[in-house]
Amino acid sequence: MSADTPWVGVIMGGKSDLEHLRPGIDVLKELAIPHEVRVVSAHRTPDWMMQYAETAESRGLSVIIAAAGGAAHLPGMVASKTLLPVLGIPIPATVLNGFDALMSIVQMPKGVPVGTMAIGKPGAVNAALYAAAILSLKYPELRPRLAAWRQARTHEVLQDRELA
Amino acid sequence: MSADTPWVGVIMGGKSDLEHLRPGIDVLKELAIPHEVRVVSAHRTPDWMMQYAETAESRGLSVIIAAAGGAAHLPGMVASKTLLPVLGIPIPATVLNGFDALMSIVQMPKGVPVGTMAIGKPGAVNAALYAAAILSLKYPELRPRLAAWRQARTHEVLQDRELA
Amino acid sequence: MSADTPWVGVIMGGKSDLEHLRPGIDVLKELAIPHEVRVVSAHRTPDWMMQYAETAESRGLSVIIAAAGGAAHLPGMVASKTLLPVLGIPIPATVLNGFDALMSIVQMPKGVPVGTMAIGKPGAVNAALYAAAILSLKYPELRPRLAAWRQARTHEVLQDRELA
Amino acid sequence: MSADTPWVGVIMGGKSDLEHLRPGIDVLKELAIPHEVRVVSAHRTPDWMMQYAETAESRGLSVIIAAAGGAAHLPGMVASKTLLPVLGIPIPATVLNGFDALMSIVQMPKGVPVGTMAIGKPGAVNAALYAAAILSLKYPELRPRLAAWRQARTHEVLQDRELA
Amino acid sequence: MSADTPWVGVIMGGKSDLEHLRPGIDVLKELAIPHEVRVVSAHRTPDWMMQYAETAESRGLSVIIAAAGGAAHLPGMVASKTLLPVLGIPIPATVLNGFDALMSIVQMPKGVPVGTMAIGKPGAVNAALYAAAILSLKYPELRPRLAAWRQARTHEVLQDRELA
Amino acid sequence: MSADTPWVGVIMGGKSDLEHLRPGIDVLKELAIPHEVRVVSAHRTPDWMMQYAETAESRGLSVIIAAAGGAAHLPGMVASKTLLPVLGIPIPATVLNGFDALMSIVQMPKGVPVGTMAIGKPGAVNAALYAAAILSLKYPELRPRLAAWRQARTHEVLQDRELA
Amino acid sequence: MSADTPWVGVIMGGKSDLEHLRPGIDVLKELAIPHEVRVVSAHRTPDWMMQYAETAESRGLSVIIAAAGGAAHLPGMVASKTLLPVLGIPIPATVLNGFDALMSIVQMPKGVPVGTMAIGKPGAVNAALYAAAILSLKYPELRPRLAAWRQARTHEVLQDRELA
Amino acid sequence: MSADTPWVGVIMGGKSDLEHLRPGIDVLKELAIPHEVRVVSAHRTPDWMMQYAETAESRGLSVIIAAAGGAAHLPGMVASKTLLPVLGIPIPATVLNGFDALMSIVQMPKGVPVGTMAIGKPGAVNAALYAAAILSLKYPELRPRLAAWRQARTHEVLQDRELA
Repeated sequence: MSADTPWVGVIMGGKSDLEHLRPGIDVLKELAIPHEVRVVSAHRTPDWMMQYAETAESRGLSVIIAAAGGAAHLPGMVASKTLLPVLGIPIPATVLNGFDALMSIVQMPKGVPVGTMAIGKPGAVNAALYAAAILSLKYPELRPRLAAWRQARTHEVLQDRELA
Repeated sequence: MSADTPWVGVIMGGKSDLEHLRPGIDVLKELAIPHEVRVVSAHRTPDWMMQYAETAESRGLSVIIAAAGGAAHLPGMVASKTLLPVLGIPIPATVLNGFDALMSIVQMPKGVPVGTMAIGKPGAVNAALYAAAILSLKYPELRPRLAAWRQARTHEVLQDRELA
Repeated sequence: MSADTPWVGVIMGGKSDLEHLRPGIDVLKELAIPHEVRVVSAHRTPDWMMQYAETAESRGLSVIIAAAGGAAHLPGMVASKTLLPVLGIPIPATVLNGFDALMSIVQMPKGVPVGTMAIGKPGAVNAALYAAAILSLKYPELRPRLAAWRQARTHEVLQDRELA
Repeated sequence: MSADTPWVGVIMGGKSDLEHLRPGIDVLKELAIPHEVRVVSAHRTPDWMMQYAETAESRGLSVIIAAAGGAAHLPGMVASKTLLPVLGIPIPATVLNGFDALMSIVQMPKGVPVGTMAIGKPGAVNAALYAAAILSLKYPELRPRLAAWRQARTHEVLQDRELA
Repeated sequence: MSADTPWVGVIMGGKSDLEHLRPGIDVLKELAIPHEVRVVSAHRTPDWMMQYAETAESRGLSVIIAAAGGAAHLPGMVASKTLLPVLGIPIPATVLNGFDALMSIVQMPKGVPVGTMAIGKPGAVNAALYAAAILSLKYPELRPRLAAWRQARTHEVLQDRELA
Repeated sequence: MSADTPWVGVIMGGKSDLEHLRPGIDVLKELAIPHEVRVVSAHRTPDWMMQYAETAESRGLSVIIAAAGGAAHLPGMVASKTLLPVLGIPIPATVLNGFDALMSIVQMPKGVPVGTMAIGKPGAVNAALYAAAILSLKYPELRPRLAAWRQARTHEVLQDRELA
Repeated sequence: MSADTPWVGVIMGGKSDLEHLRPGIDVLKELAIPHEVRVVSAHRTPDWMMQYAETAESRGLSVIIAAAGGAAHLPGMVASKTLLPVLGIPIPATVLNGFDALMSIVQMPKGVPVGTMAIGKPGAVNAALYAAAILSLKYPELRPRLAAWRQARTHEVLQDRELA
Repeated sequence: MSADTPWVGVIMGGKSDLEHLRPGIDVLKELAIPHEVRVVSAHRTPDWMMQYAETAESRGLSVIIAAAGGAAHLPGMVASKTLLPVLGIPIPATVLNGFDALMSIVQMPKGVPVGTMAIGKPGAVNAALYAAAILSLKYPELRPRLAAWRQARTHEVLQDRELA
């Protein structure tokens, strides 16, 4: 990762979530968005989580991407301790396939929002793209990179669209 | 409420949850269990929540009953900050009828347990009874009161069991 | 609404969704965020939707809030036609209570993200707050207003926290 | 595929959906129904999707079969841009096993219908048969072929019905 | 209803389903599509159901719209006895709000398709429109009427699209 | 199978369901209950299904066990054509794991009951035992065999109950 | 109720379930099936439940109908203590609308079956009819009464089948 | 296991549940909590279950951990026969992945509580920790062991928290 101050903090409830987050981290790299990746467990390290969230803005972060499975409290709790936009990714970590995590992240009560993404890897990629969209408002140089990434996906489809 | 040091802390994410908790608080009163009732919002007052959980044991509490709706993080977060047993009550506060809160409370990842009760009022009553069962281990004088309460329910059924 | 160029476009699939969005629009007003409110139906007015999304950025919008019920395609389709961050609010418009809309909004495939909020009114309020969080990166004068709004919610809880 | 003008347009949100559609395409071939197969992504190629739907009727298509997974917007959006009957197939492309796609396709709001089939391969076969049933109204020569296909299935069951 | 031979047979499992079907029947009338409306219970009148389905085509029907609630077998069983396209409408007749009927209608095994519509009234309207789309292939005079109906809905939205 | 007139008709929607039914057929054999096993598809062979159900009682059957997956109509349709008790087994034949079949079998509207068993193999075994319980009322010689079977299960548990 | 020895025992977890059972009890009366109606709570009166189930057969009962809501253990536990056929009716007693009770009744593990009916009133009616079907094997005089009841339902539909 | 009188009774509906319980039993061992492990089937050995529950307290047990799958009646039935706190673990033993067991355990009606844990292995570990939390009230020497266990989990996360 770049030595620059990170713009995006990518955090997860446990190291085993990394596998689901990887495709999103790759997109952050492709778009050259400075970021950090940390394990921050809401339940096992609540103090460190509070501190992470509380200092995020002053450390220069602009967006937080938080992933968790099961009774996924990390995104919502971090959102309660920062004014930065928080993106939540439900991880399919239990026998309920991420449905439990989706409920725990998306149904935030009024007052403290989390921008919730799809369950698992598609959600991880989309969190990275959404972070890029948000950051483009502050760092306009990002916009063409994001546009190009999206364009490339369009071209991929158009090129191979005729199957029979 | 009694002037005694409370044994049970009853907390809820918002004042509107009180209506669902009321039948459980009534059981605590019937059983003469000293308790306190507080609004502690995980999302709107995270610091106060952390402090409440952290000091619960030293203030003399033995059990915490925590109720919340939607993405219900209160029971699990309190559990992350105390070694006391925490009972969670999913509140039917959204259009999903408490199903979201159930997922958010019961599916705690390994390491930090919450004893989850049924959704809504039956869960509130049962949390009070469960607290009594736990407290009986420490305060044996409670046991006969709990036994009597249960016995009374049995008698109610037996008395009117013949309908036709 | 303000005569300023709107920063936020609030769109909904049908006029009957307005009742669910109202609390969110009120928050935008409280925070003095210039916005516009439009009915844009993905299914009944697909061309107008495409045009709305395509011109949103050039018209000066920074964030789009899109609400829809049932097979809710509006947020995702708008997101496919703009690089702006799109927030989606599932509306409980059918007998499935917004669960169908949640599935249709949150499970976006990788490549085109929608920041999904809770079903119904809590989601509408949170979309407004999330828009404010995003806009704060570009319009720093917004930050203290957002902070004050959040602070006020905290105070409300703390003031009345002792119930018994 | 036949060199004739296609009667049926089979489209899918991504090339990976083809595996689920294959058994349906095979039925179209068995019934000698001219058809084309295309990748048309609602989210990655919205313009091409709009154009595909808009020109479908004038190009001679009579029925469109559209398959998609996750927040499956393809069938409904195509239906918003054509008067032709559109058949939707939910693809089990995410950890929710096609349940998300089913919600996104079947719960279309009033005004723009999609004839929804079962999730996955059974749905693909049935979409082909349903297309044949529709086309039989216009091309009566198809009817005996469809009748024969159905008859053959009946015979298969009857022949081996005695297991013990 | 018109004295013409009906083109569409609208059938339902019980008279109480009529309330949910009414908006769809109204659309058939608006579009001047000859139709008949019958109660045909799969479970209480299986023989009459078999006979209805078996003679539908020879009586001149081109499309069947079948609505049922709970374990909704009517659409699928009718489809097993005719080659005509059958549209199914899940009726919210039980405490499960039509979810049970949706499962029972949409998950048809391969070989016998039912074009499934949304649960309840939106599904009823859409079944009528879908029938019109199918019939347009055979009765081209219907097409402009259907186009006008759809156009009118578009105009309704566009006229009132500016809310604030 | 025994050459006796069968007491139980075991039917299934397709030959692939046999694997799930096998453990139940084995119990019928263990209990020496005369039975027949047939493929009877509600959708592919509706006439044969109607005839099977209609003649079941006169052929000497006392109970029908019907298994089906997806939109499982077989148990309910057979029940509509006979006064014999019908047992339904939802088969996990689709990506929804038998949940669709459960809805389609258990939610029968009032007037035509199906005694529904658990999804899959446990349901198959239980259908056989339930058939035995019913038949014991007519053939008392069956009762001790059923009692012995149940007793054996009890002994199995008691023998190995101490694990640590 | 008749002074005869009851053939059917109708039991429920609580008196409030009676409202849902009433239509089924009415059918037992219409069919002149001797029955008794009792409150038997699995959780509040486990000993009385065990005794009820254990003595049911020797007291002359042939079928037990058991209704319960929430974590509905009554049908399954009674089934564990008797060889008689037990019919289970899930009662919509909680915010989950009987879905919880359905899961708790139908998913019995192999070895101890419960014939599960639809949730609520339709299930109550059907349990009575199913009991009649079972009893007809032992008391053939019941068969024509059951046949007539079913016939009457068929006539009701046929008489009013033409709605338009 | 220790020769001491057990403090915790770990019971399960069948031997195959042991695999899911193992991680919880390991935690009891780590914390040096005397315990016993038994198979106690609610359905196959109801009398032994009643006796186990009835004598648990007098045999010196303080907490019961009960695991079961499907229509999981063991935890609730044991709770109906003892005043001791009962912890319930839903086991993913059927095609519904433990969702059925969760419903059957957590939705206990008011009067008889079960402290419900997450589905499967995480629930087993958490039941052991929860038992430790309860027992700490009676056996204060346990508290530091529990605190150390939790601390160790915190350290594990903190040590490896920086991933990139």
